[in-house]
Amino acid sequence: MADVSSKKIVIAYLGPQSSYTHQATVDSFEESKYILRDELSIRDVFDAVQSSTATFGVVPFENSSNGSVLYTLDLLIDREEALPEIHICGEAYMDVQHCLLGYVSKSFSSENRDLQSSMSSGSATPTSTKPFPQEPRSKPLTDLRHIKRIYSHPQAFGQCEAFLSTYLKGVERHEVSSTSKAATIVAEDKEERGTEAAISSRLAADVHHLAVLAKGVQDVEDNTTRFLIIQKGSVNHKNQSLLPGKFQILNDLRPKRKALIAFSINHETQGALANALLVFKKHALNLTSINSRPSRIRPWHYIFLVEVEGEKEFEDPDLLHLALKELDTVTEGNKWLGCWVDRFGM
Amino acid sequence: MADVSSKKIVIAYLGPQSSYTHQATVDSFEESKYILRDELSIRDVFDAVQSSTATFGVVPFENSSNGSVLYTLDLLIDREEALPEIHICGEAYMDVQHCLLGYVSKSFSSENRDLQSSMSSGSATPTSTKPFPQEPRSKPLTDLRHIKRIYSHPQAFGQCEAFLSTYLKGVERHEVSSTSKAATIVAEDKEERGTEAAISSRLAADVHHLAVLAKGVQDVEDNTTRFLIIQKGSVNHKNQSLLPGKFQILNDLRPKRKALIAFSINHETQGALANALLVFKKHALNLTSINSRPSRIRPWHYIFLVEVEGEKEFEDPDLLHLALKELDTVTEGNKWLGCWVDRFGM
Repeated sequence: MADVSSKKIVIAYLGPQSSYTHQATVDSFEESKYILRDELSIRDVFDAVQSSTATFGVVPFENSSNGSVLYTLDLLIDREEALPEIHICGEAYMDVQHCLLGYVSKSFSSENRDLQSSMSSGSATPTSTKPFPQEPRSKPLTDLRHIKRIYSHPQAFGQCEAFLSTYLKGVERHEVSSTSKAATIVAEDKEERGTEAAISSRLAADVHHLAVLAKGVQDVEDNTTRFLIIQKGSVNHKNQSLLPGKFQILNDLRPKRKALIAFSINHETQGALANALLVFKKHALNLTSINSRPSRIRPWHYIFLVEVEGEKEFEDPDLLHLALKELDTVTEGNKWLGCWVDRFGM
Repeated sequence: MADVSSKKIVIAYLGPQSSYTHQATVDSFEESKYILRDELSIRDVFDAVQSSTATFGVVPFENSSNGSVLYTLDLLIDREEALPEIHICGEAYMDVQHCLLGYVSKSFSSENRDLQSSMSSGSATPTSTKPFPQEPRSKPLTDLRHIKRIYSHPQAFGQCEAFLSTYLKGVERHEVSSTSKAATIVAEDKEERGTEAAISSRLAADVHHLAVLAKGVQDVEDNTTRFLIIQKGSVNHKNQSLLPGKFQILNDLRPKRKALIAFSINHETQGALANALLVFKKHALNLTSINSRPSRIRPWHYIFLVEVEGEKEFEDPDLLHLALKELDTVTEGNKWLGCWVDRFGM
């Protein structure tokens, strides 16, 4: 690979174009130096990297208000052993500002009626069990009464509950594979034209020539999605050098590092999970998150995904080997899923 | 409550009728003794119990192949403190056998053509990265080429990948709120009649007069969903006595118990998560699962949900109080979410 020009390095990302993953990819890899290629699904991104048709892949991993992307966790766990050489080599953060995209109501624009009187009060209905419902953070920019159907990704719906329950209560929701797919559907469906809307990115409005009916419709101001950069093979200098400098783990700044480890335990053994987690503590690897997914080997048996962070610890590969060797003695199996530069807040 | 006849005890469950939760509710509570009432959402079940319009609620919690139901986890965490008195008092297991429901193709039934020749080979397409894809467990009972759209719950789609990628590759998928809602849509949509199908329960076929186009379409044979029974107020003898005997924790058989505890930690403190989990180990409470959800207080800050099991430990409420008191010293906050009889395999 030494002679391959950096011009030829392909980055596969979860598409379509204008998706949040696309934005994270553009932010991470300069388009002049890399070929960015959109893929239909997270699985396709993993497959592209495993089959070496792409050198790196970019996939969503976690949202600050909605939690982990389970598809990505499942592909990292790789129960079928179809992706044995995939490792994480970097992360990226993207501020997610959802917009409601669609068409301005014809009656609204022609009659130019008073905006306030034609809209709901802007308060979610208080009930006896929920006397103070969360207030939506933003107001519609136009009348929304013509909207009969909303399309978006399930994660995005989950992030916009206050706005939807206040201004679009009872409107039919259709869950689709991505927020950009939602914008595509609204732009293309000629039969329903005008009565459909999508929760999608600002970028998608431009790409699909849709009107922005409301901006920043997510429940929380700080709505950030974290993306992972994946590659094939173990982390080493050669592969690292193909990454943009800010992701390179062996640079002079010696920044904070993170790592992800998957393991399974024998649930019948009393204290097995606590014993496994003690290994990390013993080796000064600070656990920052833990997730569990069904192993699918037998019911109620799990694979745990543990993220650790550290500084000096990661500079000594022997120390990690020691920790993993010790983990062998208390787990049924474990897998090192990579180590990367912590880019939170950078 | 002592004089209230058991006839009047209302059980709220996640509907609509014929949902898997309905089946679990019927299995758990004899219809002759309890009033079963379907609710539109998991949130509505929690609200009904919190507002005392129902004494108990039944909600899905976890699927053996697809993992936790995040909505239920979020409601148990109760970030908005709208459901402060909800506790878990029981669990139920249901074997989930998904069926493909719809209409038999007119051309197929009238021409009675050879079934084998009109269908795909029954093998998923092998690719370079996935040479041995999972074989579907069952074959269609009829031609499926007329199907243009499939409706189901995202969890059910996730459980039927092998069947769908083999026999219904590329067919449009629509995610809806429940498998029974999917069957309702297919039964009611007159415009698309015949070209739509739903992944739903066998019971839903009878309720909605749909044909069973394929049986047992889920990827794994052992596909079980676990449901929680919730109630208002802390576990005590009075409330327990309203439950059917098999769920009563203080009966003579002294069965295995489970409990769920939520807590958050200060991520800045090295080893904070490991320290919290050590408390359970110290008090001989065996951790069987752990989940994390965003706290939504600040990004990348989590609430952990830990499930523990034990026998003798749970007979001594003082011991649990001791454990929780110790947990106070190593967590930012914690909440005891209830204790119940382990009904796995019963």
